[in-house]
Amino acid sequence: MNEIRIGLIGAGTVGGGVVKVLANRVEAFKKELGLSIKLARIADKLSSRFNELPVKDAICTTEANDVINDPSIDIVIELIGGTTFAKTVVLDALNHKKHVITANKALIAEFGPQIFECAEKNNVSLYFEASVGGGMPVIKAIREGLVGNDIFSVKTIINGTCNYILSTMTSEGLPFEQVLKAAQEKGYAEADPTLDISGGDSGHKVAILASLISNGYISYDKIYKEGITTIGAQDIAFANELGYVIKLLGIIKKDKGEDGLDVRVHPAMLRKNHILASVSDAFNAVLIEGDAVGQILLYGKGAGEMPTASAVVSDVIDVARNISGKTPIRVPMNFYSYTNATSVKTMDSVSSRYYMRFTVDDRPGVLASIASDLGSQGISIASVMQKEWHPDNSVPVIILTHQALEKGINLALRKIEQSDYIRAKTQLIRIED
Amino acid sequence: MNEIRIGLIGAGTVGGGVVKVLANRVEAFKKELGLSIKLARIADKLSSRFNELPVKDAICTTEANDVINDPSIDIVIELIGGTTFAKTVVLDALNHKKHVITANKALIAEFGPQIFECAEKNNVSLYFEASVGGGMPVIKAIREGLVGNDIFSVKTIINGTCNYILSTMTSEGLPFEQVLKAAQEKGYAEADPTLDISGGDSGHKVAILASLISNGYISYDKIYKEGITTIGAQDIAFANELGYVIKLLGIIKKDKGEDGLDVRVHPAMLRKNHILASVSDAFNAVLIEGDAVGQILLYGKGAGEMPTASAVVSDVIDVARNISGKTPIRVPMNFYSYTNATSVKTMDSVSSRYYMRFTVDDRPGVLASIASDLGSQGISIASVMQKEWHPDNSVPVIILTHQALEKGINLALRKIEQSDYIRAKTQLIRIED
Repeated sequence: MNEIRIGLIGAGTVGGGVVKVLANRVEAFKKELGLSIKLARIADKLSSRFNELPVKDAICTTEANDVINDPSIDIVIELIGGTTFAKTVVLDALNHKKHVITANKALIAEFGPQIFECAEKNNVSLYFEASVGGGMPVIKAIREGLVGNDIFSVKTIINGTCNYILSTMTSEGLPFEQVLKAAQEKGYAEADPTLDISGGDSGHKVAILASLISNGYISYDKIYKEGITTIGAQDIAFANELGYVIKLLGIIKKDKGEDGLDVRVHPAMLRKNHILASVSDAFNAVLIEGDAVGQILLYGKGAGEMPTASAVVSDVIDVARNISGKTPIRVPMNFYSYTNATSVKTMDSVSSRYYMRFTVDDRPGVLASIASDLGSQGISIASVMQKEWHPDNSVPVIILTHQALEKGINLALRKIEQSDYIRAKTQLIRIED
Repeated sequence: MNEIRIGLIGAGTVGGGVVKVLANRVEAFKKELGLSIKLARIADKLSSRFNELPVKDAICTTEANDVINDPSIDIVIELIGGTTFAKTVVLDALNHKKHVITANKALIAEFGPQIFECAEKNNVSLYFEASVGGGMPVIKAIREGLVGNDIFSVKTIINGTCNYILSTMTSEGLPFEQVLKAAQEKGYAEADPTLDISGGDSGHKVAILASLISNGYISYDKIYKEGITTIGAQDIAFANELGYVIKLLGIIKKDKGEDGLDVRVHPAMLRKNHILASVSDAFNAVLIEGDAVGQILLYGKGAGEMPTASAVVSDVIDVARNISGKTPIRVPMNFYSYTNATSVKTMDSVSSRYYMRFTVDDRPGVLASIASDLGSQGISIASVMQKEWHPDNSVPVIILTHQALEKGINLALRKIEQSDYIRAKTQLIRIED
């Protein structure tokens, strides 16, 4: 049983979890799996972190290069985060013929082709299970467990912060800003929550999932991303009244015979009996549809120290098996090749149902005018709700449409928004049936 | 790219699905995964089945031995079912140095040690993803994706027929027999439904899951199995009133410091907001708890032609990768060794909350007598419900207990059942919180 030696770079929250999980499990790995795993080196710029972790006899250093340059290290785990130093570290490690495991969704989503090409050139494994969905083995499920399928749809709640905020707004009836502040105080949201609440973090994860199911590279910057900052307490209340909940959703659909993959991240209204509607708080879920398997859902904690560490350590075992078996490219990564870039549908050509909340003057003829402008774009109205609310004499008018092209919706809205009866920007939320 | 040649034995429902999935996917496997997979031979005693399937140029035969004796076959897929001829076929194939893939839960649960020992002796892979949970990659999740965890709890709805029957009884308010009959007419239940409704099928799957998480062999016959045949429409109605739904549940719990694994299959009451409570119709779900990952749920179609074929074909790719990489024992099977049998807790030592429905004479003193008999066994009552129902002057008395030992419950019930006020056998359903 050859010892497989791990070097960990980054001993923050997730890195600390990895140190703990390895400390708990190395004996079981030896006894049950016949794998001798040794955490040999740990690098972190904050040396104080080493004192709080069960580092055992691992050599601790503040220099990442001490790990990369150690010829005895087989696997480098990158848990630095970000796409500058982390990228250098990953490429350096690969070029030193180290197998690499990373949880870095931004790095994979933005620089995937370069990194996978480098891994392939050096004939080493590059694993990234922890980059999407924390402890849920969703990448393994797609690449291995569901390999018999053409996966044609993925719908996912993949950002715990946004789901926590929206769930709390729903259960408590509170506005966004207040819930965000409380979430920050409880540690459920970052001090700078921009990447989460803007949809950017979900976008990184969706880019990776879309690349996996399309066998081509979907770059992060091609994906439409809309965050949750404009969702009002009244939208959630109206949705509830209409039988819906609002979730930040990642959507990937293969529309056969059309131009490109439908990939987007935005708030969406789901019927209350939809399986994703009951995914609350900081939980994540991925609903996958394949031509053979039908619907498969994975649900779990999508972030956090220990769930993410669970995913990293599952990669350690996979890579250790690859090393033992001399099969570094066991699961090929060609879906990330430059030459196989997949085109993404423009938002104009997306078709959806829509919720629109107009804020209008409370006077005759307004509803007729809106309906007429929608009708002239071929948009069919499914239901209308007008409430007797009169703060400063304006009323909300809620319209749910049947299926319509987003291009027509935008044209109609542009026209309607120029009308003198409009008192505030119109809220537009897509409905996912 | 060496061709990997498959021999399929059994071309019934699932076997037919495998033929179809392979026909759909072999080109993608070649192009995307670099694996050349060839369905070379198909055996089924009913030769008429070959005409209905896209067998292409596979050699079709009515003799299983034609597959096993073909030296060019690398992988034998056994989809015969049962534990007699199927067992012979699997052992013969392994002894002919064929890798084997099976969906046969009964075979694995009842003869696992013998079969895995034979595979190991012959240095070939034996994969069985389709034996539990149809299309859900639950075995891969436990053996690989969650390998960083000590998995201490599994709760599962793993029989689609029972879940369909209980869901329909709940939504329609109909009695068991009537729903079973309708399910048989629709093809959701077998002509002989015994194995499903008795809990036997769930028991096979739970035996496999329990063996996987305990790193020892849990034999099928050691597991307590109780079916759904005694669940009455009134139990479902009372459960609903109390905020619960009734599901046939497989339960596996590692209780630290106690004797043996807690493994059982029985109807259980779940609070309506429990994640498993919303798993309806023929869907299955597996809720796994690990020390690092927390709760993970897999949800999907647990049976049927195409979902089960999806799982079989994922095994084909895994085994093909094992063959290409010359790593047949990539994921070791030592948890099935004879020498590592795990003991199972007796039902007497199980602790649970309980729902009891007594059918009693409508006269004074009865409730006091029942309460006294429960109290004398140290059983604490959580709630009581007595209804003014008087068919033939008997009334149902519903009692929910706090946590209690099953031994005490049985002793109390034996005493109570001897009382002259008891009009029918008492219904006992465990509550899973």
